[in-house]
Amino acid sequence: MPTDHVLHIDASARPGLSGVDPHGSHTRRLTRRFVDRWRAIRPQDVVTYRDLGRKPPSPVTGEWIAAAFAPADQRDAAMRAHLAESDHLIAELRRADLVVIGAPMYNLGVPSPLKAWIDNIVRVGVTFGFDRNRTDDPYWPMLPPGKRLVILSSRGDCGYEAGGRLETFNLVERSITLPMSYIGITETYGVAIENDEFADDRLSASIAKAEAAIDTLVQELAGTPLDASSHTGSREAADL
Amino acid sequence: MPTDHVLHIDASARPGLSGVDPHGSHTRRLTRRFVDRWRAIRPQDVVTYRDLGRKPPSPVTGEWIAAAFAPADQRDAAMRAHLAESDHLIAELRRADLVVIGAPMYNLGVPSPLKAWIDNIVRVGVTFGFDRNRTDDPYWPMLPPGKRLVILSSRGDCGYEAGGRLETFNLVERSITLPMSYIGITETYGVAIENDEFADDRLSASIAKAEAAIDTLVQELAGTPLDASSHTGSREAADL
Repeated sequence: MPTDHVLHIDASARPGLSGVDPHGSHTRRLTRRFVDRWRAIRPQDVVTYRDLGRKPPSPVTGEWIAAAFAPADQRDAAMRAHLAESDHLIAELRRADLVVIGAPMYNLGVPSPLKAWIDNIVRVGVTFGFDRNRTDDPYWPMLPPGKRLVILSSRGDCGYEAGGRLETFNLVERSITLPMSYIGITETYGVAIENDEFADDRLSASIAKAEAAIDTLVQELAGTPLDASSHTGSREAADL
Repeated sequence: MPTDHVLHIDASARPGLSGVDPHGSHTRRLTRRFVDRWRAIRPQDVVTYRDLGRKPPSPVTGEWIAAAFAPADQRDAAMRAHLAESDHLIAELRRADLVVIGAPMYNLGVPSPLKAWIDNIVRVGVTFGFDRNRTDDPYWPMLPPGKRLVILSSRGDCGYEAGGRLETFNLVERSITLPMSYIGITETYGVAIENDEFADDRLSASIAKAEAAIDTLVQELAGTPLDASSHTGSREAADL
């Protein structure tokens, strides 16, 4: 098997793991499980870890925007410095064949550090192209094809899944998948824990179900060659 | 006329105003126009300014969450310190009768500092109540009724309005109105500039239209007594 790269991202504000640490994070628990299972099947793969919860990226600034829109060969040292963090985060993403994001629902959307990460990795001329003269479709993705994205979420209430009573209130997965589709990542999968705030049997059952779904998803994805020709479009797990 | 409080919030990463400063912000231009017009009609009102773009709130942390869920009378000095910024932002919001937010679209959602603000002002036991034993509806809003919210946005492309070709891609207004509805702000209005990225006549026309819509909206809102009994539910401007 070839060596592939996995980018493991956590965005929870809670540092610990649920089931291990007091008040630990459900999404960190899920991403850890996914990556542990993945390593067991594909020990040759390289895993890069990015903890957005512990170390939030800087929000983009006016200087960031000005530097990003300046032609690369006309950027001075200060402009390059404003983009250095973005450069680093994009390099991690570009290297990855598989991106696993732990994205808890905070107030129906993603935690602000995850939005800061998205705003840093969606960059004109680097991860997407823009030409206002292409009147039919002025945007195009610039990441190499074939990347896969797994979103592991956790929600206080229940009913946010496709077809659920709160589906339209759930902005988490779309906050990630929509911008990712602009830069070229369209093959997405998702699993979520629900009922965190009720802290009873409903939560325990939801965790057990999510963990089983992850084990199945790892088997499915790790058993599939990670190359661009192996898929033809967007796929979603039932929960996404 | 009684004195009312206006909370003017900007979230753009760009510091200047479009039409005045090079590469200035369209949303700062719109909020400034709204507030200037408002002051002209209601000079007795008090305006508080919060610049999230220039001074992003801290993302919530594990310590923040632990402190927020601890009973208020059991918080030690460290816990109170973790919540101090949230306390301050909530006090500003609680005082406001009218909240005007400049919220540009970044990668289809809100800028990360605006999400950090939302995560700081939606707080259990302070702006919303939660009781897992109320099985029918465990959440309730805790802000005093009667507040009105105006969202002034700007988008690079066009067609994000209700019924537009990209409506389902637009996460900006819902990222704000959905959590606000949980804390008790349900009367919302919106105006947006479109076509920023095309920087041609379409943008100029969109700015002119948005500015006219703001002038009308100010007249409408400033001419209405700002008290809780004067409205009965959610209202939205056409663009929201």
